[in-house]
Amino acid sequence: VVSPVVVVDCPRVPSVLVEELGRLGVATVHEAAGRSGLCGIGLHPIKPGLAAAGTAITALCWPGDNLAVHVAVEQCRQGDVLVIATTSKCSDGYVGELLATSLRARGVVALVTETGVRDVAELRRSGLPVWSRAISAQGTTKAQIGGVNVPVALGGTVVHPGDAIVADDDGVVCVPRARAAGVAEAGAQREAKERASRARLAGGELGLDFYGLRGALDDLGVRYVQYSDWLEEEP
Amino acid sequence: VVSPVVVVDCPRVPSVLVEELGRLGVATVHEAAGRSGLCGIGLHPIKPGLAAAGTAITALCWPGDNLAVHVAVEQCRQGDVLVIATTSKCSDGYVGELLATSLRARGVVALVTETGVRDVAELRRSGLPVWSRAISAQGTTKAQIGGVNVPVALGGTVVHPGDAIVADDDGVVCVPRARAAGVAEAGAQREAKERASRARLAGGELGLDFYGLRGALDDLGVRYVQYSDWLEEEP
Amino acid sequence: VVSPVVVVDCPRVPSVLVEELGRLGVATVHEAAGRSGLCGIGLHPIKPGLAAAGTAITALCWPGDNLAVHVAVEQCRQGDVLVIATTSKCSDGYVGELLATSLRARGVVALVTETGVRDVAELRRSGLPVWSRAISAQGTTKAQIGGVNVPVALGGTVVHPGDAIVADDDGVVCVPRARAAGVAEAGAQREAKERASRARLAGGELGLDFYGLRGALDDLGVRYVQYSDWLEEEP
Amino acid sequence: VVSPVVVVDCPRVPSVLVEELGRLGVATVHEAAGRSGLCGIGLHPIKPGLAAAGTAITALCWPGDNLAVHVAVEQCRQGDVLVIATTSKCSDGYVGELLATSLRARGVVALVTETGVRDVAELRRSGLPVWSRAISAQGTTKAQIGGVNVPVALGGTVVHPGDAIVADDDGVVCVPRARAAGVAEAGAQREAKERASRARLAGGELGLDFYGLRGALDDLGVRYVQYSDWLEEEP
Amino acid sequence: VVSPVVVVDCPRVPSVLVEELGRLGVATVHEAAGRSGLCGIGLHPIKPGLAAAGTAITALCWPGDNLAVHVAVEQCRQGDVLVIATTSKCSDGYVGELLATSLRARGVVALVTETGVRDVAELRRSGLPVWSRAISAQGTTKAQIGGVNVPVALGGTVVHPGDAIVADDDGVVCVPRARAAGVAEAGAQREAKERASRARLAGGELGLDFYGLRGALDDLGVRYVQYSDWLEEEP
Amino acid sequence: VVSPVVVVDCPRVPSVLVEELGRLGVATVHEAAGRSGLCGIGLHPIKPGLAAAGTAITALCWPGDNLAVHVAVEQCRQGDVLVIATTSKCSDGYVGELLATSLRARGVVALVTETGVRDVAELRRSGLPVWSRAISAQGTTKAQIGGVNVPVALGGTVVHPGDAIVADDDGVVCVPRARAAGVAEAGAQREAKERASRARLAGGELGLDFYGLRGALDDLGVRYVQYSDWLEEEP
Repeated sequence: VVSPVVVVDCPRVPSVLVEELGRLGVATVHEAAGRSGLCGIGLHPIKPGLAAAGTAITALCWPGDNLAVHVAVEQCRQGDVLVIATTSKCSDGYVGELLATSLRARGVVALVTETGVRDVAELRRSGLPVWSRAISAQGTTKAQIGGVNVPVALGGTVVHPGDAIVADDDGVVCVPRARAAGVAEAGAQREAKERASRARLAGGELGLDFYGLRGALDDLGVRYVQYSDWLEEEP
Repeated sequence: VVSPVVVVDCPRVPSVLVEELGRLGVATVHEAAGRSGLCGIGLHPIKPGLAAAGTAITALCWPGDNLAVHVAVEQCRQGDVLVIATTSKCSDGYVGELLATSLRARGVVALVTETGVRDVAELRRSGLPVWSRAISAQGTTKAQIGGVNVPVALGGTVVHPGDAIVADDDGVVCVPRARAAGVAEAGAQREAKERASRARLAGGELGLDFYGLRGALDDLGVRYVQYSDWLEEEP
Repeated sequence: VVSPVVVVDCPRVPSVLVEELGRLGVATVHEAAGRSGLCGIGLHPIKPGLAAAGTAITALCWPGDNLAVHVAVEQCRQGDVLVIATTSKCSDGYVGELLATSLRARGVVALVTETGVRDVAELRRSGLPVWSRAISAQGTTKAQIGGVNVPVALGGTVVHPGDAIVADDDGVVCVPRARAAGVAEAGAQREAKERASRARLAGGELGLDFYGLRGALDDLGVRYVQYSDWLEEEP
Repeated sequence: VVSPVVVVDCPRVPSVLVEELGRLGVATVHEAAGRSGLCGIGLHPIKPGLAAAGTAITALCWPGDNLAVHVAVEQCRQGDVLVIATTSKCSDGYVGELLATSLRARGVVALVTETGVRDVAELRRSGLPVWSRAISAQGTTKAQIGGVNVPVALGGTVVHPGDAIVADDDGVVCVPRARAAGVAEAGAQREAKERASRARLAGGELGLDFYGLRGALDDLGVRYVQYSDWLEEEP
Repeated sequence: VVSPVVVVDCPRVPSVLVEELGRLGVATVHEAAGRSGLCGIGLHPIKPGLAAAGTAITALCWPGDNLAVHVAVEQCRQGDVLVIATTSKCSDGYVGELLATSLRARGVVALVTETGVRDVAELRRSGLPVWSRAISAQGTTKAQIGGVNVPVALGGTVVHPGDAIVADDDGVVCVPRARAAGVAEAGAQREAKERASRARLAGGELGLDFYGLRGALDDLGVRYVQYSDWLEEEP
Repeated sequence: VVSPVVVVDCPRVPSVLVEELGRLGVATVHEAAGRSGLCGIGLHPIKPGLAAAGTAITALCWPGDNLAVHVAVEQCRQGDVLVIATTSKCSDGYVGELLATSLRARGVVALVTETGVRDVAELRRSGLPVWSRAISAQGTTKAQIGGVNVPVALGGTVVHPGDAIVADDDGVVCVPRARAAGVAEAGAQREAKERASRARLAGGELGLDFYGLRGALDDLGVRYVQYSDWLEEEP
């Protein structure tokens, strides 16, 4: 049987890029990355308005067992985001108040987990932003480990250690380390463009004209029909 | 292949009826309509306490494509509710801050969508009430169209353009145009009756007596058993 | 056909124990009970921050019918929690503002239901804490009954009448009557121990050391590998 | 409260068109209809290989109650498909062996239901093709009715009485009465075209060339990269 | 912490009653039991056509751990059905070919599990009928135990050790030991009645007349409307 | 915006290893890999009894668009398995009879997709084994591409091009290229061991003794209690 691995000292996206990505937010970063990296739907913040950005440390756990999380904590540094995935789906409460205390002590800026969390009232008060699939008081054992800082799948997206993770009310997005600079730059350009668009749309200009879509409607053979004529035509 | 249709100038439920239905709220309207028109569960407001009522403009989209939404915006007038459905299930973010800006510019009073939305922090601040199935930063293309102002299925209920849509914390209900007046009247009567009921129940009167249900229990052969006797009888 | 039963005068966990269990909260009580009694995930409080504890009165309903709830109300006393289950899954709104008024009039301290609830804006204001699977304006009939104060399954856990129910942001847990004293005592001990742990973890001590987990890692054959070495080894 | 309606003597798609649509099958019909009318995923045939086509008679039921089905049976004629929807989601067994016996006696050619069915072993032997959301032994009451031959939503698609319903291993599709002739014709053309395509693809011609997609790849800026070069570029 | 319990030598429903309940099948037994005891939807047989009946031995497991199953095997006798539930939801493969071999060696007549199973091709060939929530190759540990022969919740129904379990293509139903005789008798009566009904319905008699439902339609205010008149009335 | 990539000429697990992994089957391979690589639950074969093994070619698609699949077909060689993932969840029918014809023409041995498939009756007859999340007649566009032969997440597991994919009735497992030899060897050993175990368990030996689990029960404080004593103790 293949033995589990803990990868140490992975390189990380530089903090200046992480900050810029965080400032841009999930939706803009996702667009700037060519619509890649979004970690699915269903990773909910534990309260509205949370936002965070950092570098990924990954913990791959067995169902119902958080030993890999304890191992991962030691690998975390200031500015990291702990990312928890499991070898098979599990909604148990992998992290509660005590682990959150440890994470804050290591300078971790956010927790993103495919599992559940517990002590959620305390987590909300704690200042550690958390995105999770579920809330569950069900605790875990500490007997098995899948790996730490191995690539994991987070909501259908592959996350490598050291990648940038951005999370807010729109969900969680992962930017691979090699693309962080390019995405940050593309994001800033997109931001500027959207600012201009917003003004014109607020002034009443239609998206049909603004984006030049009327030709596409003709190509698709779209017909405009008066309601009364349409009633005749349909049953 | 059949070409897509945009139906224009559909008649709408008069605004005075829409307002009255909105005042009654989803639960009362649904009852007054003979328990019809409820658009399923799972259309969640993007924050607690939202409430709105308006007349439906429908956009039928392809999965991952919001061209029909841009077409529908042009058909919207003051007091309309934009209703988005898709030809196959899709949780992508069909509407974000920019489209919301357009909708507000057209006087749209609410957005109800079978899809996801994005820029949800901005949407919460924007003053446009939104009910959606999901939150997702995943954007859409603008290349296909199912139809605009065709009948759509919203959470298992058929919505025609011009129907009244009422939405609040209890979900979303659709009142067909031809029934709006009758439902508003029946709703007002129900409201008055509930006010009286509330006072008596608050005073301690039991529903069993209030609704005259004890006879039904006899008909069903319901037996009242002391706990100790029941322990004997059961394993 | 077997006729339905209403069990009356079931013994209840004493209120002093209920209060202590409520003070400890769901996560601690669940641990103290040997990780048993948790009523699954998905029983959501209707607003954040709700917490309650009481003794169970159970209503077993048919799908789409809340007659058993009306029967159960009469069996409720000060300090009870009404627990609603159904013979087949149903998300309809079994309880709204009127029934909530009745429940408060009987001194019921919380409602926990496998079904939906409605009038949720009013319920949030009402002072009755509610945990439910769904929100739905769809009303119910009053024609059938499964039973009252029979054992029911709540999120995969068996609840008997008179058991202690504790509910908060972490979900809902049930403590069987015969175990309430033992669980309360074990919970208090656990609470004291966690207080000490929190201080040490906040000071930077690692869970790996604190819980003595490093030996387990050796036993599992866990390998620590530098990132650059690992790149060589993996594709 | 608005009272329920039973619509009688609705016009139906002529049987010659229904037969042709049935011959083409669900996937081809759906394409020919401009990719509209598909009744979602999750309407499963009760055994592999079933196929049927007929004209819709709709029954709109309350959750847990199949009175509308009994009313609808009387409206069914030779060649009809009974379509069952509910006012709120319900997986109970609305139809079992006895109702299936009635349906066969009326000449009904298929049953399509948003609910569950029961006596499924008998249904498989009975010769009545059935598509349902679920299998459940849970019976229903006969006390409420939503309507018969009113428009209903079937898996997100609106079905009117008299529409053509085609069902096979790929699911269920609805063709509105006014479009049946056009769709049948477009379907036959598509069928001929696919026959030709199949031969060329079987001979090894690539879809990229066959559909002329290489230009689109250039427009999207797609880069072809050797595996070894890509390893350098990515982390 | 409360320690786990293995209850031994529980009394069982006599085999003659179990056989009769098995002969009647799930749907009839469920009706005869006053529509109680059905173990939800989603417990699927691993192949069509399986049917079994026996007495319950219950194993309550932790997520991802099947130690309780191994303990339960020793408590199984000829004619038992092994029922597996978990303290929190888990789809892992709790039982594969090896455990199935053990179960057959003990005379177990069926396996019903809230979890997944694996080696499903071998299980299909093995002659042990299996109903499960899922199929998963993910194995389990053997380190924790919830209890054996404690009451468990199976698809929302409470199962006690010694209860009769009947399973077929319609799902799984549990008959409490104290009710087995009554249910078997009521089931036989129902069976006779259904035989008579089938003949009349096959002859074309309508359920509306057979069950005397036309009066109910009048009471509900149901209106019969010609299609053409209804088109006028609706939008 | 980052442009999409098609990686060509990736190295593949040698066919002799692929064959051996296929012979061992999903459950054994998953165990031999240290319980890693299982691609979740819910990837269902389109008929019972299918089994296949090959090397992965990955297509990362946009929702509702299968252009990446057409690109990937060109990269497929004899012995490959086509693996389709999407940037956001989509159940549309990405592959039907025509694409299956192309895949067979290229020597592809299986299709595994996170999406739906269509023409399922034809696919069942075609001789191409298929594992998919859904069946849907809904077609796709050919306008967008996520990437080809980039790492993708398949049911929560990361798949790289060239990895070995094994699929059967138990689901789908991925073995990274660098581990294939080790896993094949460990699997063969496990197979031999299981053969011996099966004989002893078939002879009636208990898992409790065979695996030496009785000590663990003592450590957990498990109590064996007669049914009658337990009745006293519990409510």
